[in-house]
Amino acid sequence: MNNYQLRFSGTGGQGLMLIGDLMAHYYGMVEDKQIVLLKSYGPEARGGASRSELIVDEEECYPAITRPDFLLAMSQQAYDLYTEDADENTVILIDEDLVKKTDDRFPKTYRLPLTEIAKEKTGKAICANIVALGAMTKILHIDPDKMLEVLKEKLPERIRKINLTAYEEGYAACGGKR
Amino acid sequence: MNNYQLRFSGTGGQGLMLIGDLMAHYYGMVEDKQIVLLKSYGPEARGGASRSELIVDEEECYPAITRPDFLLAMSQQAYDLYTEDADENTVILIDEDLVKKTDDRFPKTYRLPLTEIAKEKTGKAICANIVALGAMTKILHIDPDKMLEVLKEKLPERIRKINLTAYEEGYAACGGKR
Repeated sequence: MNNYQLRFSGTGGQGLMLIGDLMAHYYGMVEDKQIVLLKSYGPEARGGASRSELIVDEEECYPAITRPDFLLAMSQQAYDLYTEDADENTVILIDEDLVKKTDDRFPKTYRLPLTEIAKEKTGKAICANIVALGAMTKILHIDPDKMLEVLKEKLPERIRKINLTAYEEGYAACGGKR
Repeated sequence: MNNYQLRFSGTGGQGLMLIGDLMAHYYGMVEDKQIVLLKSYGPEARGGASRSELIVDEEECYPAITRPDFLLAMSQQAYDLYTEDADENTVILIDEDLVKKTDDRFPKTYRLPLTEIAKEKTGKAICANIVALGAMTKILHIDPDKMLEVLKEKLPERIRKINLTAYEEGYAACGGKR
């Protein structure tokens, strides 16, 4: 299966993004292929034609992004690998306990103990991603109430409360006041 | 915000795909931007460096796929729009009640009453996407047991049972025996 391209289309509300996710998970995680999942949203997602697309290949199959404006790095390996195409304008957020060695080429770097905050405030290191999301909400000038609504809508009930705490703590740790 | 490129990186298991989903939902659905979300899976997703990437733009911002090998079309509008770059080798699955007008250029077309099957077998038209997933599992020669495991893992508890029925019915409707 070399560069097999799949498109799932219909109208907004038919669950086409979920199909993309499930098929991506199957090919990427079960079949060990390289996949790129492309979700296109936009005004047409509500009512008009809507689609998600999936590329499956034996090897890394897509140029992906060319120069990151923003980079979250939650491990040293990821930092080393994914700063390669960054430049001095790239805004970077690192977990300072997991990325010890940083490069002076990137002055716009935010350092926060994301995983430590998650452990201390929620008791779960796994919530570090949502602590990061809170911090990114502040860094990227995202409306914090609107992002909170997204979290409430998308997170399953059983992990919602703990992650809303993680989100607020990440936002506050980055200097955000609520 | 023109062609703003974000990368979320770390190691497998840190929830980087979820961050991609949440940020994509925010920019695409709340801010009404055009987004493309790229998820890269592969062997590195378990243990090594892992990432998801997001491109945000005012306009459609990515070439996406170039020639679909497979197309699911669950509305006439989607069929008309997304067969444009298809050819005679493209395998197409349509909901035959929602796509009445088809093109003879595409001999490899499967016609199933996806939404009707969902309504009849689960009582919910909304499960048509998972009926389609069952049919695609058969059409694309995917291991049905492995896809079943993906569904069990990824679907929230409260909608799991009904969708497992939808999946099995879609697989059977396409001639799959279990």
